[in-house]
Amino acid sequence: MRHSIILLPLLCLAAPVAAQQPDDLNRVIDEGLNHSQVMQIAQHLTDDIGGRMTNSPQMRQAEAWTADQFRQWGLSNVRKQGFRFGRGWWIAGSSVKMVSPRPIQLTAIPIAWTPPTNGVLSAPIIVAPMKKERDFDAWRGKLAGKIVLVSLPGTGDEPNEAAFQRLKGEDIEKLDRFEQPKNDPASLERLMKRLSFIRKLEAFLKAEGAVGWARQSYRDGKLLHGEGYDFGVNDTAALPGVEIAAEDYRRLARLAKTGPAPVLEINSDVRFDDSDVNAYNILADIPGSDPKAGYVMAGAHLDSWVAGDGAADNGAGSAMIMEAARILKSLGIKPKRTIRFALWSGEEQGLFGSMAYVDEYLATRAPGPKEEQGREEMYFRYKTRFPITPKPGYADLKAYFNIDNGSGKLRGLYAERNVAAVSLLREWLSPFASMGAGNVVSQPTDGTDHEYMQAIGVPGYQFIQDPLDYESRVHHSGIDTFDHLKAEDMRQGAVVLAGLLLQAANSDKTLPRMPLPTQPAVSDPFKYEDPSLD
Amino acid sequence: MRHSIILLPLLCLAAPVAAQQPDDLNRVIDEGLNHSQVMQIAQHLTDDIGGRMTNSPQMRQAEAWTADQFRQWGLSNVRKQGFRFGRGWWIAGSSVKMVSPRPIQLTAIPIAWTPPTNGVLSAPIIVAPMKKERDFDAWRGKLAGKIVLVSLPGTGDEPNEAAFQRLKGEDIEKLDRFEQPKNDPASLERLMKRLSFIRKLEAFLKAEGAVGWARQSYRDGKLLHGEGYDFGVNDTAALPGVEIAAEDYRRLARLAKTGPAPVLEINSDVRFDDSDVNAYNILADIPGSDPKAGYVMAGAHLDSWVAGDGAADNGAGSAMIMEAARILKSLGIKPKRTIRFALWSGEEQGLFGSMAYVDEYLATRAPGPKEEQGREEMYFRYKTRFPITPKPGYADLKAYFNIDNGSGKLRGLYAERNVAAVSLLREWLSPFASMGAGNVVSQPTDGTDHEYMQAIGVPGYQFIQDPLDYESRVHHSGIDTFDHLKAEDMRQGAVVLAGLLLQAANSDKTLPRMPLPTQPAVSDPFKYEDPSLD
Repeated sequence: MRHSIILLPLLCLAAPVAAQQPDDLNRVIDEGLNHSQVMQIAQHLTDDIGGRMTNSPQMRQAEAWTADQFRQWGLSNVRKQGFRFGRGWWIAGSSVKMVSPRPIQLTAIPIAWTPPTNGVLSAPIIVAPMKKERDFDAWRGKLAGKIVLVSLPGTGDEPNEAAFQRLKGEDIEKLDRFEQPKNDPASLERLMKRLSFIRKLEAFLKAEGAVGWARQSYRDGKLLHGEGYDFGVNDTAALPGVEIAAEDYRRLARLAKTGPAPVLEINSDVRFDDSDVNAYNILADIPGSDPKAGYVMAGAHLDSWVAGDGAADNGAGSAMIMEAARILKSLGIKPKRTIRFALWSGEEQGLFGSMAYVDEYLATRAPGPKEEQGREEMYFRYKTRFPITPKPGYADLKAYFNIDNGSGKLRGLYAERNVAAVSLLREWLSPFASMGAGNVVSQPTDGTDHEYMQAIGVPGYQFIQDPLDYESRVHHSGIDTFDHLKAEDMRQGAVVLAGLLLQAANSDKTLPRMPLPTQPAVSDPFKYEDPSLD
Repeated sequence: MRHSIILLPLLCLAAPVAAQQPDDLNRVIDEGLNHSQVMQIAQHLTDDIGGRMTNSPQMRQAEAWTADQFRQWGLSNVRKQGFRFGRGWWIAGSSVKMVSPRPIQLTAIPIAWTPPTNGVLSAPIIVAPMKKERDFDAWRGKLAGKIVLVSLPGTGDEPNEAAFQRLKGEDIEKLDRFEQPKNDPASLERLMKRLSFIRKLEAFLKAEGAVGWARQSYRDGKLLHGEGYDFGVNDTAALPGVEIAAEDYRRLARLAKTGPAPVLEINSDVRFDDSDVNAYNILADIPGSDPKAGYVMAGAHLDSWVAGDGAADNGAGSAMIMEAARILKSLGIKPKRTIRFALWSGEEQGLFGSMAYVDEYLATRAPGPKEEQGREEMYFRYKTRFPITPKPGYADLKAYFNIDNGSGKLRGLYAERNVAAVSLLREWLSPFASMGAGNVVSQPTDGTDHEYMQAIGVPGYQFIQDPLDYESRVHHSGIDTFDHLKAEDMRQGAVVLAGLLLQAANSDKTLPRMPLPTQPAVSDPFKYEDPSLD
């Protein structure tokens, strides 16, 4: 008898709120687990298409294929949302060799949006670590004709933690600690200064007559990444640049310290594609039965870097979004609210796809300073523009769910300080608690496509995911390939997402919203800036 | 008062037995820590010379340079001990590209001692996993004109343990559990069969008209290794073979499963060098004052594989051996017994350098079967030859210490079941207990150059070392480079080794020996063989 007393509230918790269609959740689970297509979708995006740099020919392929899939599955209003981005760029081939003092093929990759070498560039290196403008003086007059190694060579890493992890209960508990917002304009200005340094460095190297430059990979183990940000049409760097594997970079640096400067041969056969300076989000709907009920949305960015095949970041998220759409559509679900699926572009360079969505459909922010020209800076300054003027569609978006943390199992949602929304989110996730996805924690997250929605007060949330080896070695690296995706996790993710969207679309309730943000006060008005941080 | 009672035996333990020259140990420590050359030695072997495959031009450089160093430091009787090995082989350049369905530069390395492609070999792949001869039937008639992928493509790894580890007390305790010897001739025969499979596979591929073959790397994360064993002069494989990074191999396999076979372009510019079929050990002595007292010896193998620079395996051990020699010689130490330093060749292919030392100086084993022609099989069968006939020098070798477990700190010695030797070994190590090196454990180890000495009853020991990331990612791989060596560990290692040799060379005692081994009884004469293991 005591058992029934205890069980009663548990049963209440476990009952989905969308009790109108209790079968539907189990049909979603059946379709998503017994008839899954999520790995086939991911395999096409990664193996067949490969790394999908914004505006590259590969990304164009991915835009066409994903839109076509949505259409084939019968989704409505499948469309491309264009926004001005910049140049396409891709790697046709590349090779970096040390030719003296002894021949070695180095592990290296051209840095994104750097220009080609136009054949083989052969030159001695010079190790000239520079982090700030004041470091330039030491190297003035010494760089002509050289390939300049600009990173300070460090020492090898000591990976004392397992590369592959799953979240334990206590890890998730730690995320559920309310974190007060901070507004520290000075630290933002410091960041802006650091970001503009790379362009000053490029200009300095060019002015000094250097013929190319190289930096060290930020991960050991011969992993490569190659991120770069000079993607504006009039913004191309003057010199070819490559990222060299840490082990190879440090060997070059030691050889240069103990003997004659090693000579490199760099062949960076990279290509620009200016046929269309617009990037495109792919949007597709399952229309709702009640046009006044608004819509719910899920999204992931389709673009990636190019050292790997853009699998965990973010073929995985894209495939889960697409699979959730396929599952819901294939079951003939007719939700009350429209369910919208979004595949964003330009995420890796500054969340530009979701920014374009906010600008076009949700709210107008005050104009930014003139120097914001499709660059990283825009990303960091965008949220500092006030006032925010909601557009007519602002209130229609009832919830947005974003996936961008690899292929790990969905473990719940970050509530982004919206403590009033926690109980409803928990309710919607409760059917998936036994799949590990029942958690809602208060912490905010950033750096992906829900961020600009959160920043205007729209309930946009990111999933908690098992980290697997995403941060430790896969994120942006050459091993971001299909076989680092976990099929069981991906199937769980698609099912949880589809089930959550279904409930959010049919619920009698909508999520409590945050107040419309206004210019926040400086968190610590009494603080002195430490000049040594400059 | 209770404290002093407890402290008394601890103090006794800590007193070095070689009390004749109490200053010398501290002079060794001073020279090895305040004036160390160990990292400079390792840097030359790895960065300047690079991977040192047995009989390759790089190994010839290393032989000359190490002998020259010993001479410059004033060691005596510096000499090369030659033994017949086989061909030299090195990589002048190599490239493996997938050219269709889309262009990607693959991460790959030629397999050791495979022949060159003589320009670019372009052919479609076929995935034909074969592990046993009976697997050939499924592929007969299907391989002509193909590059054959012979590994079964697995799924991605999940590294749940930290790649970088140090030994804790309990880890060392576990090693101190006496393990009874086992003699299981049937399992040896099974192993022999597996080893001969690769040659049968190569012959099958050739007979079927395949044009090349590829296998999958056994580590994920784009690490490469490239071990191969067809080094006999008349033993060269017919077809070029490459090892492809796991991520790239699996992508090829998936593409072949879901669409037209990918086409590869392989350029394997590898070179044979038959100018001298002998390999050479480098030996150097610090002569003892008492010609009748015998000698003690320390050794490490100088040869390596070639994906990396042979740093942890075994530039580290070689550098510690050389540094110990330098330290002892530079201090003008005149030991009672000769101290001999050995840098072995041919270790990676079967401990052939130390085998040659045993054969020439220590004991004659019964001749082996005819098929032992410088191949892996010889390594596994050598210890099965009885009787052992000691040579005149057999009793002169009082102790041999081997280093071959990377650059990790020395933590003590494996006593190889010689429980009678434990107390004396502990005594000799006790001055280094506070450096972490005071442990002696009973377990045996194998797979390196003390093994054949142990096998004839000579007291040959391997050091316990902190594993660092040796087994997890560095051993034999492309990241076996200088910057995965730990300088503090290497200095400790050289000091501990020098101090141990000093004490062993001057001690009034010598290590108790094991009885001369004779043909062992089969451990389980009642066992039936499981035919499924064939």
